[in-house]
Amino acid sequence: MIRIARRVLIGKPLHNKEMMHERLPKWKALSIFSSDALSSVAYGPEQALMILVATQGVIAYGYLSPVIVAVSILLMIVALSYVQVSKANPGGGGAYAIAKKNMGELPALVAAGAVFADYVLTAAVSVAAGTAAIVSAFPGLSGKEVGIDLAVLFFILMLVNLRGMKESSNIFVYPTYAFLLGMIVLIGSGVYQAFTHVDTFIPVASLERQPLNMAMLYIVLRAFANGCSSMTGVEAIADSVPLFRKPEAYNATITTYWMAGILVTMLGGVTFMMMHFHIMPLSEITALSQLAEHIFHRSFFYYYIQVTTMIVLYLAANTAYNGLPVLLSIVAKDGYLPRYLNSRGERLTFSNGIILITLAAGLLIIVYGGNIEHLISLYAIGVFISFTIAQFSMVLHWKREKGSGWIVRAIVNGIGASATGLVVIIITLTKFSHGAWTVLVFIPVMVLIFKKIRGHYDDMADQLHLPMEEKLECDDQAVVRNYVIVPISSPTRVVYESLKFAKTLSKDIIVLHVAKDDESATRVQAKWNEWNPGIDLEIVHSPYRLTVQPLLDYVEELQAKKNPQDYITVLIPEFETRKWWHRLLHNQTGWILHAMLVLKENVSVITIPYHLNK
Amino acid sequence: MIRIARRVLIGKPLHNKEMMHERLPKWKALSIFSSDALSSVAYGPEQALMILVATQGVIAYGYLSPVIVAVSILLMIVALSYVQVSKANPGGGGAYAIAKKNMGELPALVAAGAVFADYVLTAAVSVAAGTAAIVSAFPGLSGKEVGIDLAVLFFILMLVNLRGMKESSNIFVYPTYAFLLGMIVLIGSGVYQAFTHVDTFIPVASLERQPLNMAMLYIVLRAFANGCSSMTGVEAIADSVPLFRKPEAYNATITTYWMAGILVTMLGGVTFMMMHFHIMPLSEITALSQLAEHIFHRSFFYYYIQVTTMIVLYLAANTAYNGLPVLLSIVAKDGYLPRYLNSRGERLTFSNGIILITLAAGLLIIVYGGNIEHLISLYAIGVFISFTIAQFSMVLHWKREKGSGWIVRAIVNGIGASATGLVVIIITLTKFSHGAWTVLVFIPVMVLIFKKIRGHYDDMADQLHLPMEEKLECDDQAVVRNYVIVPISSPTRVVYESLKFAKTLSKDIIVLHVAKDDESATRVQAKWNEWNPGIDLEIVHSPYRLTVQPLLDYVEELQAKKNPQDYITVLIPEFETRKWWHRLLHNQTGWILHAMLVLKENVSVITIPYHLNK
Repeated sequence: MIRIARRVLIGKPLHNKEMMHERLPKWKALSIFSSDALSSVAYGPEQALMILVATQGVIAYGYLSPVIVAVSILLMIVALSYVQVSKANPGGGGAYAIAKKNMGELPALVAAGAVFADYVLTAAVSVAAGTAAIVSAFPGLSGKEVGIDLAVLFFILMLVNLRGMKESSNIFVYPTYAFLLGMIVLIGSGVYQAFTHVDTFIPVASLERQPLNMAMLYIVLRAFANGCSSMTGVEAIADSVPLFRKPEAYNATITTYWMAGILVTMLGGVTFMMMHFHIMPLSEITALSQLAEHIFHRSFFYYYIQVTTMIVLYLAANTAYNGLPVLLSIVAKDGYLPRYLNSRGERLTFSNGIILITLAAGLLIIVYGGNIEHLISLYAIGVFISFTIAQFSMVLHWKREKGSGWIVRAIVNGIGASATGLVVIIITLTKFSHGAWTVLVFIPVMVLIFKKIRGHYDDMADQLHLPMEEKLECDDQAVVRNYVIVPISSPTRVVYESLKFAKTLSKDIIVLHVAKDDESATRVQAKWNEWNPGIDLEIVHSPYRLTVQPLLDYVEELQAKKNPQDYITVLIPEFETRKWWHRLLHNQTGWILHAMLVLKENVSVITIPYHLNK
Repeated sequence: MIRIARRVLIGKPLHNKEMMHERLPKWKALSIFSSDALSSVAYGPEQALMILVATQGVIAYGYLSPVIVAVSILLMIVALSYVQVSKANPGGGGAYAIAKKNMGELPALVAAGAVFADYVLTAAVSVAAGTAAIVSAFPGLSGKEVGIDLAVLFFILMLVNLRGMKESSNIFVYPTYAFLLGMIVLIGSGVYQAFTHVDTFIPVASLERQPLNMAMLYIVLRAFANGCSSMTGVEAIADSVPLFRKPEAYNATITTYWMAGILVTMLGGVTFMMMHFHIMPLSEITALSQLAEHIFHRSFFYYYIQVTTMIVLYLAANTAYNGLPVLLSIVAKDGYLPRYLNSRGERLTFSNGIILITLAAGLLIIVYGGNIEHLISLYAIGVFISFTIAQFSMVLHWKREKGSGWIVRAIVNGIGASATGLVVIIITLTKFSHGAWTVLVFIPVMVLIFKKIRGHYDDMADQLHLPMEEKLECDDQAVVRNYVIVPISSPTRVVYESLKFAKTLSKDIIVLHVAKDDESATRVQAKWNEWNPGIDLEIVHSPYRLTVQPLLDYVEELQAKKNPQDYITVLIPEFETRKWWHRLLHNQTGWILHAMLVLKENVSVITIPYHLNK
């Protein structure tokens, strides 16, 4: 039953040789790797605006345009920096890999922790924003957001990714272009309306700016920090250079420029329209939905915008599913995470990582009630920490490599590192108490965990090191004894079978009965004598009616007595019952004894299955 | 830590020889075995009254006295019948034992199911009634009843009984007498007030009786059925004859008469006063509390009555803890329940049964919200089914034994059986839809479970029967081979140790590596050749990256190939890590393989512990 459900939901297992990578043309790569970055236009400007008009009773609407301009400039700097990353790392690799190569263990682990947090938040924020887009269009869904988010996470994203989907699949390509088409028409129509209507070009209320005192600066910087959430996903192209058609680095560079250009254009257009139509943030209708409704009313095109926005946001969540499991597998391969995160499941996907991100993102959505504003407060800081580490690593890289024009390259990445580092400071200062502290605690905790895990694996490798020189000599085999202890409760067929087996293992067989009272001791001894199997029965009296402890004591005594090279083996029969509930009718001494014996050094346990057929 | 808490709460383990029974004098036996029966005066009359005044808008107050008279007559009949049981069974034994001896398996199992239900309900009803007594006196506790009930069950009754307490302990003796003293003073004062006051002797309203049509008859019979809850526990003395001082049967008989006399007197007195003061049932104040307040106002004596009532009711719950675990152990010994219900814990008590009754009673209290009225609807039917079976068994007993005057004895028990059988019918008819159906479903389900369990044990005994004639011949030992399979992931010290051990077991060692890809196959083979331990390495390719399934397939192939008398043993190392969380860093293949192999016939599994010290 479970197997059939598994086949239907996940598909049949895939053979190793079915693993392959198709090289992507630029137009496909753009849509696949940029859905995260481009879709952020759906929430980035709104999140900046929200701070400007909703904080402490001040309406600082006029500062929206400088904030978005600053975000756009930063975006271009980061894009230029990542073009350098693409050129220097034709093999791809995220912040963790670059930092490990150029800066060492600690910065790499910090980057890994930051990217981990970032990916989980990307999944959570994108799913929540996608749901917000569709709830704006269909208010009847309002109040069911968390349920929709979780359904999308568990029943769509998790299952699709466990199945595994070719990254080049057209499913991932067209929605992004459909979304872009919608945004072009939206911005075009909006700008046309702005120029042709009799209204003021941009209403005065939208341009008024309060004097920039310290309090206002704080608000503006916080708005900027929120706006920076638009920049998540910019690194995706540089991480995936090897998937491009040749010449890889060149194509990746061109694609990065396209991505940045489109994103800056959309940010500018959306911000212009928001100011022109003086959109205010509402809790149940997204700013983008308000804009679209303003321009198209509730026509087909309004719904087109909302649906494509929803789909592209869910796709953006999917990029986290592409990225995180791969990151975890690389970190696990280096021994900083449990090794099994590096093994591919039956569909060649990193199933454990996929389940992990689904659970983590689901938990975040439940904890924050699917509220994008709260999730955004955690977001961005992880991204910018990893940006900074990656860019700084590049500076070190150029300095070491010293190729032609290395100084210019180092300066470009240096500017990138400084700008993103500054953003980290701004986000920390403005959003610390609003949730950023969670991430700033999470990252060091993760680094600690990474190091502890690596420490354990290192210790283990030391201890498990094969002594190559010892060649398994056989000459002392005659001297080594293996004491096989067979605990019995009364002589039965199981004992008969166990002893038959024990005789193939050793000449030193000890049959042991733990007697809870004298009566049972006498009875068992009498039956044993009657049967007379040629082995002596040892009876251990247990006046406190314990079974396991006297056996353990016996084993300990034997351990003290025997030669050091001798072995002790305890033989425990395990009943396989025909029906599951029959198991409840047998006492659980067997596995308790097993569990206790394994804690002792140099005592092996043999489980002999005994199948009850009735 | 757990061990210390255990010692403090439960006490140190007791040696077998510390088990003993003190013989009880009549005055102690009366209080110990009658607390259940005598305390029921606290709720029996009230539960009868509740039906008479609260059902279908009719106030049939006047029928209270005939109902209680009927209950009293029935009580005397049952007491006389049980005197006969005492005489015929000087060894004690409840309805189950008597029915098994005289009527056979099925009636005995029905009795066991009925008594099981009865004991659990005794615990639940008595605890709830005890709490009601104290809540009546201290209304501030109102609303916390279920919490108090559960606290009494888990923290007092369960712990005290797990500790084990000599039945003769004075803790159980004095409260019953304190309660009786209170009741004597209450009834004496009440009757005195009734005779000396100027009021009507018993108000007319309390004597009015509606014509006894069918509807009224139904109500009166239901009231009678509820009143019969006063008779639970009457059998306790007959069940415990061997605990009396010699001559046991005689002393038990006298004690039964005393118990019945006291109970009838109290029932009469309480009913008289309830009618004289025209007490009406209230939901938060018990009738007994209303009576006591009427007579003593809120004086010391009022609180004395409430507190002793509470204690004696909790003690009544304790009689279920004395009875049920013993019953379960007897039934388990006969193979109708899991055998471990028949093993005494470290304090010589039947711990499993004690925990079982606590959980069951706690569940009932939670399900019924601690409402006595609802619990009473389930009650009594089980008691009267077991009464009927016991009395009918006695009729068969006298008929078979045919001692002097056996006809008279048989008639006495026959009348008892008929009367209690009639009560079963009355309860079934009047309370079926009010909850009695639950018990009538529960009993056959239990009987079915009893039979299924016994069936499994019988089947097992057949299969485990020792072949006495087969003498463990050793001559074919040279011919029998034991294939020891050692699965390895790469050559490490663990493999070295495992092989050293395997060599003591067998000459046929198969070292197996499941390769998830060609690269790992080549790497492991190369390392193996370099080490060259003198055993060949077999590599199984697993292109679908499974580990366990290829191993199972290999074992199956070997099973098909080998001689029938040969054994297969799989050697699995188990890592004992120094810290618990290290375990999470190792893959779980070992125990999955173990669990799957045990499902195969004739494949043994050896667990070799490998302790990591770092």
